[in-house]
Amino acid sequence: MNIPEKTIERLSEYRRTLMSCDRQGISHIFSHILAGIHGITAVQVRRDLMLIGFSSDTKKGYDVKELIRFIGNILDSAEPMNMAVIGMGHLGQAITKYFNSKGLKLRIVAAFDIDPSKVGSEIMGIPCYDMKEFEERAEAENIDIVVLSSPTSAATKLVVPIINAGIRGVLNFTSTPLNFPKGMVVENYDITTLLEKVAYFVKENDENNL
Amino acid sequence: MNIPEKTIERLSEYRRTLMSCDRQGISHIFSHILAGIHGITAVQVRRDLMLIGFSSDTKKGYDVKELIRFIGNILDSAEPMNMAVIGMGHLGQAITKYFNSKGLKLRIVAAFDIDPSKVGSEIMGIPCYDMKEFEERAEAENIDIVVLSSPTSAATKLVVPIINAGIRGVLNFTSTPLNFPKGMVVENYDITTLLEKVAYFVKENDENNL
Repeated sequence: MNIPEKTIERLSEYRRTLMSCDRQGISHIFSHILAGIHGITAVQVRRDLMLIGFSSDTKKGYDVKELIRFIGNILDSAEPMNMAVIGMGHLGQAITKYFNSKGLKLRIVAAFDIDPSKVGSEIMGIPCYDMKEFEERAEAENIDIVVLSSPTSAATKLVVPIINAGIRGVLNFTSTPLNFPKGMVVENYDITTLLEKVAYFVKENDENNL
Repeated sequence: MNIPEKTIERLSEYRRTLMSCDRQGISHIFSHILAGIHGITAVQVRRDLMLIGFSSDTKKGYDVKELIRFIGNILDSAEPMNMAVIGMGHLGQAITKYFNSKGLKLRIVAAFDIDPSKVGSEIMGIPCYDMKEFEERAEAENIDIVVLSSPTSAATKLVVPIINAGIRGVLNFTSTPLNFPKGMVVENYDITTLLEKVAYFVKENDENNL
């Protein structure tokens, strides 16, 4: 199935909202309610769900549990995927804690760092290994995806071990955009960009309101 | 000027790369080099720069310092904008440390938390105040933009004080999408979405390669 990136992002967001609804005992939800929560139009929600072939809109709205399962069939792989975090500073720890508390199919199972005070210990419930051992450990732990939360200055040094270890997806939070061979999935995500974007639109709003 | 969100993101990314080039003593850069670093096409780079009216492509490529200044005129506001972080856990600290080390015009000047061990102290070089005092402190410190890095369970409680304090932009990292009145700039950014997206495209790659 050929689903655009933006739709994949929204499906991930819908599912999180639906899971929260489910925990609150909400069994059905209308498209315009789901849309309102995400600040988009009901047409967009219906279009996204149509694209993945979900069509059981009842008089009570979508069945929450059914839609969670349906989105799961699209997003999740049959085999659980293992992730590792490279760089166990504040950002690495925040991501691990946050992510592993969600009960998702994706799990962060290992961390890597070069700081001797971290290597060899458990942080946020997962073992932290020496970055020197990355290739063998990544293979042993069956790591598919890595999150880069190291200092930016270390980022380029990580490319070769990541390729050698056969990693298939990279989420890069450092400020250095990294290029990997074609066929690897890479998302470069610098938080500065998000903040500069918000600041820009705040400024534009001001200028339009003069 | 009406510049699409994606272009604003790329301009922010180009500038970061250009600043790094400048620090390394690189004075000129070709569009295809800049494109290669960001994993996009030279056509895209040229189109983005054309859109903001930058046209001084020389035989040696773009003048790095000039392009940094030019992008700055688009992205930055004349007055510096002040930001605050709400929730000074690992994520809040990572963002503060990272962002304030960049020497940008945007500055994180205050933090807010409810943890008595944090309130009243300085964390990452900025004062941490009690969330109870948010409205008066935000006004006193002239806060324009807030970063929400609190636990997700606290997110909805933050909406009213943020509106009351006259905040104009919100970057929300909690898992609860928040709705604010029209005219406020809001970016909801859940890191889980990024990871689920990478995982999805890794899975798709696998299936296409069977």
